[in-house]
This record gives sequence, structure tokens and C-alpha cells, in this order.
Amino acid sequence: MRPICFISDYGLAGELVGSCKGVIAGIAPGASVVDITHSIPGFDVVRAAEILRHATRYMPKDAVYLAVIDPGDKFTRRALAAQAQNGAYLVGPDNGLLAPAGEALGGIVRAVSLTNDRYYVKPVSNAFHGRDIFSPVAAHLAAGVDLEDLGEEIAPASMSTIDFPGVRREPGGGLVSEIIDIDRFGNARLSAMHEDLDLRYGSPLEIKVRDDIMNARYVETFGASKAGDLVVVPDSHWRLSLAVNKGNAARALLLSLRDEIRIEPSEEPAPR
Amino acid sequence: MRPICFISDYGLAGELVGSCKGVIAGIAPGASVVDITHSIPGFDVVRAAEILRHATRYMPKDAVYLAVIDPGDKFTRRALAAQAQNGAYLVGPDNGLLAPAGEALGGIVRAVSLTNDRYYVKPVSNAFHGRDIFSPVAAHLAAGVDLEDLGEEIAPASMSTIDFPGVRREPGGGLVSEIIDIDRFGNARLSAMHEDLDLRYGSPLEIKVRDDIMNARYVETFGASKAGDLVVVPDSHWRLSLAVNKGNAARALLLSLRDEIRIEPSEEPAPR
Amino acid sequence: MRPICFISDYGLAGELVGSCKGVIAGIAPGASVVDITHSIPGFDVVRAAEILRHATRYMPKDAVYLAVIDPGDKFTRRALAAQAQNGAYLVGPDNGLLAPAGEALGGIVRAVSLTNDRYYVKPVSNAFHGRDIFSPVAAHLAAGVDLEDLGEEIAPASMSTIDFPGVRREPGGGLVSEIIDIDRFGNARLSAMHEDLDLRYGSPLEIKVRDDIMNARYVETFGASKAGDLVVVPDSHWRLSLAVNKGNAARALLLSLRDEIRIEPSEEPAPR
Repeated sequence: MRPICFISDYGLAGELVGSCKGVIAGIAPGASVVDITHSIPGFDVVRAAEILRHATRYMPKDAVYLAVIDPGDKFTRRALAAQAQNGAYLVGPDNGLLAPAGEALGGIVRAVSLTNDRYYVKPVSNAFHGRDIFSPVAAHLAAGVDLEDLGEEIAPASMSTIDFPGVRREPGGGLVSEIIDIDRFGNARLSAMHEDLDLRYGSPLEIKVRDDIMNARYVETFGASKAGDLVVVPDSHWRLSLAVNKGNAARALLLSLRDEIRIEPSEEPAPR
Repeated sequence: MRPICFISDYGLAGELVGSCKGVIAGIAPGASVVDITHSIPGFDVVRAAEILRHATRYMPKDAVYLAVIDPGDKFTRRALAAQAQNGAYLVGPDNGLLAPAGEALGGIVRAVSLTNDRYYVKPVSNAFHGRDIFSPVAAHLAAGVDLEDLGEEIAPASMSTIDFPGVRREPGGGLVSEIIDIDRFGNARLSAMHEDLDLRYGSPLEIKVRDDIMNARYVETFGASKAGDLVVVPDSHWRLSLAVNKGNAARALLLSLRDEIRIEPSEEPAPR
Repeated sequence: MRPICFISDYGLAGELVGSCKGVIAGIAPGASVVDITHSIPGFDVVRAAEILRHATRYMPKDAVYLAVIDPGDKFTRRALAAQAQNGAYLVGPDNGLLAPAGEALGGIVRAVSLTNDRYYVKPVSNAFHGRDIFSPVAAHLAAGVDLEDLGEEIAPASMSTIDFPGVRREPGGGLVSEIIDIDRFGNARLSAMHEDLDLRYGSPLEIKVRDDIMNARYVETFGASKAGDLVVVPDSHWRLSLAVNKGNAARALLLSLRDEIRIEPSEEPAPR
């Protein structure tokens, strides 16, 4: 029985996740369910796709990914299941959520549109396809049903994709990226990856936020800075974070999601 | 090993749910636990009973339901376990929570009062019967202990029941129901079921909230309406919801729990 | 496969807990994970240690405890795994979190520093040792790896410990304790245990909060008091709680964490 790795925007305040897990337990008794997270903000497919893609590094190889972020227009989108090069399955709406994870797993090799209602929970509600379509399909895959049985084969290349915020290099050597998440400590996760910054740890930086320019340092860990220091530090996704050691960068610098941040190597600042 | 389907008002902020699961894992190793939800507002037996009853449609047939909403007066109430017609077990306090679920599972066929303290965790605290009485009993049932061993048999008809908010039909054709839940999107779930409204999708309606009357439409899905439209739409419980497409009905109409809503078929409104 | 009992300060808003569970599911397929709680306030090792120590009463005997509260200075602290007298394992940073639980399990009999990176997830991030070091090690222990394989043996006595807030007895017969937690109902959990109060249930008490003295009663359960009564009552940890029946003691008495509370036996108050 394959494990099911579940991500959604259902939250834990109601019984939505519980209903999906009940359906799974009925179809694939004993299958373990790993909750990646259910706290994705409603409709935020881009954030969910980033988290899901990254999570694929840590989930079991034989996982069935169950990824349900309401596309807002579910009646005009296909419901999909796909298999990646490494053997894992992905199940969810055709809204761009699955493709980046599939790529991280070696690429999608086969995909179907979930047109075979034999694998649905009946009656199918209009309001809750996660429970009535995606969860039972994921459970059947976990229990060994063939992908081909679930519906009509489609071309993997026809699956929706999304554009992640990227980085832009400026002529003067600046790296411009975007804030893609702010965590509960006020650390701002940037669209830039660790390897986008061609500097040694310890190097001084100039950070531009809106029209303000300030000094910072590129550090390997918070431990390499003093309390109150503004730092750029690789986070657990191997992305760069803008942070204040033992402080709250988002509050201190009035940062918001989608803000552009320019990072530029600088001279060693004069001693204060 | 039967799966245990767990609903409570314990929340996830503390270790209450974790302690119950530890007890279960010790008695019934490998039994899977499906969390229906732990976010029921404290003491809200009616809301928990509605969610539990509905959840029975989606849980495995051989489930042991563990349902613990503090009755507020637990020392004057019996602790119960019961078996439904379909074979499932239900465990919890005798406060009305179990009966509606039992009915949905075909009716309660046998029930016991949990008087045999051999199946308790000792010492039994006064503060936390979920951990010390209900969880170990549910785990023993999951592991195969006989219902009769758990205590004295009682008449199923002696179990407490609760009255759910219903609907009332007015002479003029109006259907009066009650708001039983408001979700995080501001959609108001009504006590009326889908089948209480004898109308075709698309039909115009008049909605009366307090003394205000407004136009709405009965739709199958949000997709059948425009942003900002007031609609009545079946939700994932097959209940009617009063909602504003891409808006917040509760905020727009100042709705509160327990408010009465009258729905009446109307003429097609004149084009605006 | 041993069950893994997991406590952390990761919260459920992001994918931190999910990533750890993915790692576990890959290394120890089918191992059950019991979430003790993930809502410990960041860095609050003392609170986590109290909850973990107490939870050991309710977890399976063969548990692997995975306890990760960021020590704030993780690069100067050892990462540890240990075995208790009763056979259970404990895994986490050397910040005092593990020792009290180990003591409750009969004492630590062997311990290692996790220096063998063969059992890490690679590459090891600086930001997330829970995922990259502690979770895989816990999973390997659950799956049967020998403790000795995980690193260099250390003296159990060299593990960090912490001081829990205790109680102080005053010459006049007063018991002074500290508020160590305030729950969502406003009940204040005290550092005093049930057995620290040498009184019968029903006894009248004088409670001193800051400079205010008020009457209360020592009761076995809330049911033994009237709504609005100030009571001292044993909680589910067998600690004393200061509470207002059907009210909110923290709000009524302006209580804060770490406040000192003096409890003193008193004469029966004159009837009002």
C-alpha cells in the first residue's frame, strides 16, 4: 500500500480533511497519510506548488501525492492523475499545481483525465471534489489500481503549468528577487535560491527595499551574526531569506508579499 | 484492527489529542486514527452531532467512532459504547452526540454503560475522561474486545438524543430555516437540506433576513452566478448555503448563528 | 516497527511537520507517528519538557520520542539519542528537553551524540535539523537500527537538564507556586502538584495574587462548585489549577504566566 502525501487549502478548522481521510481509510485500509500541510491560503496555487515541489525531496519514493487547491473554476478544469519518472503518482485539479512537482520527480511520463466515475464517491457533490473525486482516486492508486483505469489518457505536455517568481540580474551586479512567503518570525523567503548568490558566506551586501538601501551580510546561519543584524541566510528550502537575527524583518522593514528585494555585493562597511 | 474515527472539542493547541492517541497506540498498535475534526467549539454538542452524523457517510464501515465533547456535567452522565446496525461502534458521553450518528448507521442495536474499569487508564482523572475512559475503550474495541465486556447493557432507547434545528413551511410557500454554521468564507450553512427546496436550479428566490427582503437565485454551483450575486447553493453536506459569490455573505448581511432565514420562490426580477 | 511520538514548536501553519513525517515514512514505512503537540511556543523548552515528561505516562512503552524545540543555538549543542530504563528511545537536541522525560521513564541508561552522518538526510541544511538529523535518526531507531551505530557514546549524566518551577512552603502554612500555563478557558495551571496540598476536598482556601487576597475552595471537580466560584482543582496533569467555574480566571484576576500564587488553608468564610 503506497503512502498518500496530502496538501490542501482546507485548513483544520472544519471536517474537510477528516472526510477525505475517511474516504481513503475505507478504500485503502492501513495506507498511511502524510499531511504536508493544509494551511495553504485559499486559491494560492503558486505557494502550494512551491511547497509541494520542494516537499517531493522528502517524501517516500512510492508516494501518491494528493494535491487539492480549489482552482475557483473547477467545472471548466480537468481532474487529473499522473505518474512521474520515479514512479510516484500525482492527483489533483489541472491548475498548475502538479506540473512543478512532477518535474522535480523526473518529469511526468503518463497522465489521465479522471473521467471514469467508477472510482468516485457517489453522489458527487459540486462543492467538494477533494472528498468525492480526488481522495478516492488517490486511495485506489495507493491500493494498486492502474492509472489507465482511471480515465482517458492525455498528453503530459497538455497539463497546466505555472510560472514561479524568478530572479533578475541587473547590469551593476544586483540580484532582484521577490518575497514569496513571510514566516511567523517575520523572515522573508525570497524567490532567489542559495546558488543564485555567487558570494562567500560573510560577505557584506547592500539590500534595496523600495527606495531604501541598507547594509546586510550573507551568512550561513543566524549564529554567525549578532542579535539585531540584518542578514541574508539560506532557509530550509535552500532559498535565500531576508531576516533580522532575533528580530522581525518583516515588521522592521515593512515587508509585504511580492515586494521586490535587490541584493548587491558591497564594500566592507566602515566600522561604526 | 478497526480504524478509530475521532471527533472532539480539544483543539490542537495543547497535548489533549496527543495523549488520547498515545493511549490508543499503546492498546491497539497499528490501528489507524482518522481525525474528523478537533475544532468543535467547546460544549457545542449540536454542531458536533451534525458533523459526526454527516461524517458517517465517508468513514470506513468498520469504524470505531470516538466522540468526545465535554458535556459540562460529566459526572452525572453515563459513559457509553454502542454498536450500530452496520457493525460500527460508537464511544462517548451520553449527551446526545452519538444517537444521530447511530441512526445514520442504521440504528443502535446494542449499548453498554462503561462501568467496567478494567478498560480504563488508571488513575482516572476527573479532568480528562477522553484520555482515561473513552480512548482506551475505543482502542480495546478496535483491537477486538467484546462490547459486552465493557460494562452493563443498557437499552439503546435510553440514550440521550438531541433536536437538530429543522425547517418550517409557511402557508405562502416560504421555507424558514436556521443558520447552523458560518464558514471561513462567510457562507451561512442552513438547517434546510437540498431536497427541502422544490425548485429547479436557476430559479429566482426572495430571501428574508430579519425584516429585509432581497433577491437571490438558487444555483447548482457558484460557477452559475456572477461575482457579488447572492445565491442559495447546496454545500458538501447536501445542505443549503446562503452565499455571495466571491464575497462574504455573513459580513454583507450581518448574519449570525441561529438567525432565521426565509426562502421563498419569486418572480423573475425585472432587469436592472 | 516502534511508534514515534513527536513534539515540536513547528506549528501546523507550514510544511515543517509534514516534511519530517515524509522523511520518517520513507525510512520506516508503516511506523505510526503520534503527534503529542506541535504548538509549543517557539524556544519554550521548559513548557515542552513539562508536557513531554507528563506525556510519557500515556505513550506506548516502546516509543521513540522525537522532541525538537529549537535551542536557538543549535550549532553549539550536541544532537542526542538516548535509551531509557523502560526501553523507550529519546531523540532531540541537548537543551534539557529530554532529561526529565528520561527520568520519568526510569532514567537514561545509554546515550549517544549523533555524529554518524550516515543516518542524516543529505544535504543537511543549517535551518532545519528536525528534518535532516532528528527525524531520520528517530525513524532508523523505529526501524531497528542500534543506538550505538548512531554516534559516539556519551555519559547520560552529561546531558543537559532544566529546572522546573517548583513550590515554596511559607512558615505560616502557605504554599507558593507559579503559573506555568494558561489554557484557552483561562484556567491557570500551577507548578504545584495535587499532592502538595495536604487538604481534603471541600476545604476553604485563601488565595494571594500579587497583593490581593481572596476566598476560594479546593474541589475535586468543577461540578462541586457553583458557576462563578473561584476554585483550586487538580487538572489532567495532576497539577493544581486556579479556575473560575464557567468563567475565565485569567481574565477575572489579570493572571499572567510566571505569576506567583500563594495558597493557604483558611477558616470557613462567614455566610454571605
